[in-house]
Amino acid sequence: MADDKALTKRADDFSAWYNEVVLRAELADYSPVRGSMVIRPYGYGIWENMQRALDDMFKATGHQNAYFPLFIPLGFIAREAEHVEGFAKEMALVTHTRLVKGPDGGLIPDPASKLEEPLVVRPTSETIIYDAFSKWVRSYRDLPVLINQWGNVVRWEMRTRLFLRTAEFLWQEGHTAHASEAEAEEEARRMLGVYREFQDNWLALGVITGQKTPAEKFPGADRTYALEALMQDNRALQTGTSHMLGQNFAKQFELKFQAESGQEEYAWNTSWGSSTRLVGGLIMTHGDDGGLVIPPRVAPIQVVIVPIYRSDTERALVMEKAEFVSNVLRQERIRTHIDARDTLKPGPKFYEWERKGVPIRIEIGPKDVAAQKLTVVLRTDILEGVARKETMDEAVAVMTVPRRLDDYQRALLAAAADRRERNSYRGVSDYAKWREIVEGTGGFVYAGWCGSAECEAKVKEETKATIRVLPDEEFRTPEKPTRCAVCGGTAAEEAVWARAY
Amino acid sequence: MADDKALTKRADDFSAWYNEVVLRAELADYSPVRGSMVIRPYGYGIWENMQRALDDMFKATGHQNAYFPLFIPLGFIAREAEHVEGFAKEMALVTHTRLVKGPDGGLIPDPASKLEEPLVVRPTSETIIYDAFSKWVRSYRDLPVLINQWGNVVRWEMRTRLFLRTAEFLWQEGHTAHASEAEAEEEARRMLGVYREFQDNWLALGVITGQKTPAEKFPGADRTYALEALMQDNRALQTGTSHMLGQNFAKQFELKFQAESGQEEYAWNTSWGSSTRLVGGLIMTHGDDGGLVIPPRVAPIQVVIVPIYRSDTERALVMEKAEFVSNVLRQERIRTHIDARDTLKPGPKFYEWERKGVPIRIEIGPKDVAAQKLTVVLRTDILEGVARKETMDEAVAVMTVPRRLDDYQRALLAAAADRRERNSYRGVSDYAKWREIVEGTGGFVYAGWCGSAECEAKVKEETKATIRVLPDEEFRTPEKPTRCAVCGGTAAEEAVWARAY
Repeated sequence: MADDKALTKRADDFSAWYNEVVLRAELADYSPVRGSMVIRPYGYGIWENMQRALDDMFKATGHQNAYFPLFIPLGFIAREAEHVEGFAKEMALVTHTRLVKGPDGGLIPDPASKLEEPLVVRPTSETIIYDAFSKWVRSYRDLPVLINQWGNVVRWEMRTRLFLRTAEFLWQEGHTAHASEAEAEEEARRMLGVYREFQDNWLALGVITGQKTPAEKFPGADRTYALEALMQDNRALQTGTSHMLGQNFAKQFELKFQAESGQEEYAWNTSWGSSTRLVGGLIMTHGDDGGLVIPPRVAPIQVVIVPIYRSDTERALVMEKAEFVSNVLRQERIRTHIDARDTLKPGPKFYEWERKGVPIRIEIGPKDVAAQKLTVVLRTDILEGVARKETMDEAVAVMTVPRRLDDYQRALLAAAADRRERNSYRGVSDYAKWREIVEGTGGFVYAGWCGSAECEAKVKEETKATIRVLPDEEFRTPEKPTRCAVCGGTAAEEAVWARAY
Repeated sequence: MADDKALTKRADDFSAWYNEVVLRAELADYSPVRGSMVIRPYGYGIWENMQRALDDMFKATGHQNAYFPLFIPLGFIAREAEHVEGFAKEMALVTHTRLVKGPDGGLIPDPASKLEEPLVVRPTSETIIYDAFSKWVRSYRDLPVLINQWGNVVRWEMRTRLFLRTAEFLWQEGHTAHASEAEAEEEARRMLGVYREFQDNWLALGVITGQKTPAEKFPGADRTYALEALMQDNRALQTGTSHMLGQNFAKQFELKFQAESGQEEYAWNTSWGSSTRLVGGLIMTHGDDGGLVIPPRVAPIQVVIVPIYRSDTERALVMEKAEFVSNVLRQERIRTHIDARDTLKPGPKFYEWERKGVPIRIEIGPKDVAAQKLTVVLRTDILEGVARKETMDEAVAVMTVPRRLDDYQRALLAAAADRRERNSYRGVSDYAKWREIVEGTGGFVYAGWCGSAECEAKVKEETKATIRVLPDEEFRTPEKPTRCAVCGGTAAEEAVWARAY
């Protein structure tokens, strides 16, 4: 059945638009377990392309994958809780390990199977991983340890949104151990750079980077670096974090090594993570009222070919051409799909592939075959000087597809970065004006900050905006702010404020 | 520190040998959570190569990956329990979702966070997946649905062995829905074939295939097909299963579709899975008293290059050559590693890479560089007519490495299949003789079976041997057995019996 009802417009209800895109582009679905989601093949296909690209980058920077247990002893978590403030306690707890028939015949947890110590379903794996490292590391020769894990984690969120915030989500978490503080710091910054390279050049998010304030950092870290993207509704989305953990976990988990000097020292750790939340960021960065727009490098289908025909003879003719075009493009390593469904007319097919954000559609009708022409349609008219829809010689069409995909990929990044800057407000020193922006159009507000937790808390309380990052050099306003936009005191740093997901 | 203590010999204590190989080849480690394991980078590297190969095969046969929730409502599991006998009830149960400070200051599950209905950590995902399918499938046009999931599952095992039986393990589970019984049956058989292709041509296990008896099949299935490999201690290891589920789950989860006839019908399902247990199977199939032996196609390192030197000058000379050789081999897509550690002498390095099962070692000393020679050492002397260790012209060495790896891969399969057949006993009709084999040397015993559950149960009771499979045509004994080896009655089928992991 054709699903061609128009989507809610972004301007009317961005949140409703988002949910409709996720569901109707068949990226994900709700599940019978509150807060969990089903990632459908098309959404998972995007995630797989992300994984492949990130994994290659991790390996190119010397990391290896490994796998650690899903369950963490409560005692481990308690140790972390002891030494950090602001420790989140919403997590899934396993208390029993067997089902039995209950008094009314249904299955219930067997009281006899109650665990002495409950197990925590990992919300993140620092504790269990550094415990393992402590068994493997003896000397400086065993360092650095550079590990990444792909897996699922669970945080018992009360308000959930598909991809953006779910009780269970998929992610990768990098965990490293180093012999010196400088090395660990370098690693934390390196991985922030890897994330930026990935999020800009693959996902075209146009992120900014910087450091979190003490109030916003990961409680177990000395310093947290983060990437922030600006969504089309002008709210920020944190798209990844890289933590310099110092020796905090090493001390809790006895991760020690014999230094070259012969002395025993605690190792220095970093951890860094990014998740299926990135799919949500991709949707809210690039999508339009027609649905999803996927950057070609992570698109499960880069070119969809829609054959147009009325009779079996015509079908045979255009299908042969479609197969030919598809094969030629596949030799160029382009991911193609021929939509050969007889149950849908071309119109509904066009709508469907637009909603699913496929970058290029090629239409082939019997007249095109006769004239050796193809009609090439871009998902958006983002390419300057290029018609969105154009009928051209077959050879030209096929030959130019790879370049068009590259251009389109770059154009999406340029557009995202451009939109972000258009919605960034710099040099705002008047708090009233400042609030007007934050509570009105939204966006990134760059302003001076005195460095006090009080000013930060006051803003959060009054406007729900938080400091997303203290921006890295290249994102800072050339003219350094001198006054704190909140209290009017001397500015210690420039901060980027926004309401966030 | 050099770890060069000899391993326990297989003949002395196979089980101790196995554990030592796993730990000392750094494949996996114990974890502080009972029954869970840590898969270390070298072990995970093998698993990643397995995943890549299997995933390609699944996609080539039309399947797509997706992801379903880790947690399953208890009610779903109860529905499954209702309609199947022999339902395993050992599973991890999530009952609370928050921690609070307890009376003595420690963290405890918050009684206020107790879930109304406990959640089950998935032991397998039939229920939650077919529930999702039931929302997606409306008409025969939506069929078949061909899905695979890579993920972790938990079964609360009491006696655990690294890789072979752990509470949490990694696996893939395929789940499909079809419009007809014949199509589903074809799919179940097709995926058994895919597994066999993978397990023989990639893991070189030399498996046999066939159907499980009603007593040994997956309780929710109409029919279970399985692959069985024979380990070096002559016990069987089930290395994968493919289930024809009939309409059992479709009926429980209302997975219905409108058929071409217009009538509403229940879909037909299959599911098929294989897991990190395969790593255990690989170890027990190929390993020797020197440690691991890895088939090249799944080896994280296919060629290790060990430079031999005494001075810095020599080091520079041999390292340059090592880099050159490594680069040439990498262009042939061979996975190489240069062991440039200054902290170990060549001898301990050789032991280590042998223990880790790297198929080929290349040694380069200063004299070799001068003479343009390389010393090529195979991990085992399995290749007929090829010396295990040979010094040869550099160009010849480099050029013949790919072929040697191919030959070695094939030789491992031939050796495994040959060992399996040497330890298969056919045409045994006398039960006393039969018991002598099963309780003595072990191996696969092919014998007639009357088809009665009583005979099957009696054997299990008396000897701990089970019917591994009713073998597929090509594995059957040419002369069909006429008598049941247990009761002496008329044989309905030939069965393969063995003690199993």
